[in-house]
Amino acid sequence: MRSGCNEIGKCNGNTDTQDKECAGDSGSGKGCIRVVGLGPGDECLLAPQARQAIAGSDVLVGYTGYVELVPQELLAGREVLSTGMMAEVERCRKAVEAARAGRNVVMVCSGDPGIYAMAGLVMELLEAGGLFDQVDFEVIPGIPAFSAAAALLGAPLMHDFASVSLSDLLTPWEKIVKRLEAAVSADFVVAIYNPRSKKRSGHLSDALEIMGRYRGPETPVGIVNRAYRDGQKVQVVTLGAVDESDVDMQTVLIIGNSSTRTAGGKMLTPRGYANKYDI
Amino acid sequence: MRSGCNEIGKCNGNTDTQDKECAGDSGSGKGCIRVVGLGPGDECLLAPQARQAIAGSDVLVGYTGYVELVPQELLAGREVLSTGMMAEVERCRKAVEAARAGRNVVMVCSGDPGIYAMAGLVMELLEAGGLFDQVDFEVIPGIPAFSAAAALLGAPLMHDFASVSLSDLLTPWEKIVKRLEAAVSADFVVAIYNPRSKKRSGHLSDALEIMGRYRGPETPVGIVNRAYRDGQKVQVVTLGAVDESDVDMQTVLIIGNSSTRTAGGKMLTPRGYANKYDI
Repeated sequence: MRSGCNEIGKCNGNTDTQDKECAGDSGSGKGCIRVVGLGPGDECLLAPQARQAIAGSDVLVGYTGYVELVPQELLAGREVLSTGMMAEVERCRKAVEAARAGRNVVMVCSGDPGIYAMAGLVMELLEAGGLFDQVDFEVIPGIPAFSAAAALLGAPLMHDFASVSLSDLLTPWEKIVKRLEAAVSADFVVAIYNPRSKKRSGHLSDALEIMGRYRGPETPVGIVNRAYRDGQKVQVVTLGAVDESDVDMQTVLIIGNSSTRTAGGKMLTPRGYANKYDI
Repeated sequence: MRSGCNEIGKCNGNTDTQDKECAGDSGSGKGCIRVVGLGPGDECLLAPQARQAIAGSDVLVGYTGYVELVPQELLAGREVLSTGMMAEVERCRKAVEAARAGRNVVMVCSGDPGIYAMAGLVMELLEAGGLFDQVDFEVIPGIPAFSAAAALLGAPLMHDFASVSLSDLLTPWEKIVKRLEAAVSADFVVAIYNPRSKKRSGHLSDALEIMGRYRGPETPVGIVNRAYRDGQKVQVVTLGAVDESDVDMQTVLIIGNSSTRTAGGKMLTPRGYANKYDI
């Protein structure tokens, strides 16, 4: 027997805007769905709130590659529904259906569940089904992939930055190009997600060409593969010397702004203290 | 006696690009400095790696407001050097000096230490002093303030977004304006940090006016104060109805893109699944 879905927002003592009354103990059988960020993948960066949410769930739903990031002991004792890549709608629908049936569901995502992940799609399905009154919904934030990459690279994101996905599965390529141009022309640091797939081999070189219109070839570029996972690889190269064979779908690239430099073999975007203080 | 600074990168089994050899056990007395992200503030969102780094340190350095976020039991047994706001250079210099003396130092920051925080300034000081060989340096990522705000708001960041600080203490206001214009004109979701201080009362209204040139007055805007801390306040309003008295220096604002809408009282930026799939 499931125990219902209590303690939404438990971790935070001050959830005045969140639903504190979940069915559970009251026996009304109202289900809930928590979209949970696993962070980059290593258990050492999994937040206690995420761990608690998984441990308290009846059903865990996720892409198979992310379910593998969940600590083994947390998978025991609950139903696990995993689906392959590209099956996002199916996956979220399963999660919503289970919650609608009164179960306590977690949908796991790598990184932050609110950045290019499943928090939005779950909300879309709840909205389409008119289910916000029937199912409690919560997002548990995680350390995003660009924060993990940045930490391994040094301090590349220190100033204003833009995050752009090169995937054109759901976004017209023209819009992506416009965003890249806007970001680089206004001197944002740029974090690039989904830089490459088998079907989109040319997008990364196009993106780098756009960057090169506004930044010099010596601009530092960080390339991070599998941050905090088996096979991690961290490189600081230059915009003129990115080797695209180092890049796959899971790589995060961080392209410096006009002030970014290397220091101690790492990437540093100064915030501007040196202009004002004696460093 | 201090125990030296071992186990840099310990949490991650695959730190091929990181320094695994820290003095500690070898007795060379090499110090280290870890810039640690506390996340939004609630202990439930403090990563185990951050907790371990603090627990293993000799000296903890931080802005007094952030030191207060460190769990009490972790403050015991170590020297705590806290400084007031605006004393960033002094604070980082103390941390670097302690590490240079062979101590195991953590510099704590709220959110992610690599986003508008201290990772970069510590690197600048290490660079200026030529200290990268003498002091081990590591950044431990945390959940950024915009991820925390987004989780409480629903799913506003789901698509490409830009992060802009309105503080002109270190950045010319003209550059900030240019970034705001670029971001909104290319339909990024925009996260705004440091929206207001006593000295800069007009910047937020200027920023909102710029947003209003490209987005309608009904565009959803999330206003989050003190996410996951005492006194948390989460509001979803519209661009035409932002009450600036709700905003202070610690507030994060998230301004939707052209597709952002409200759903279930929360903020939703669809990724685009509904254009391709039956939702």
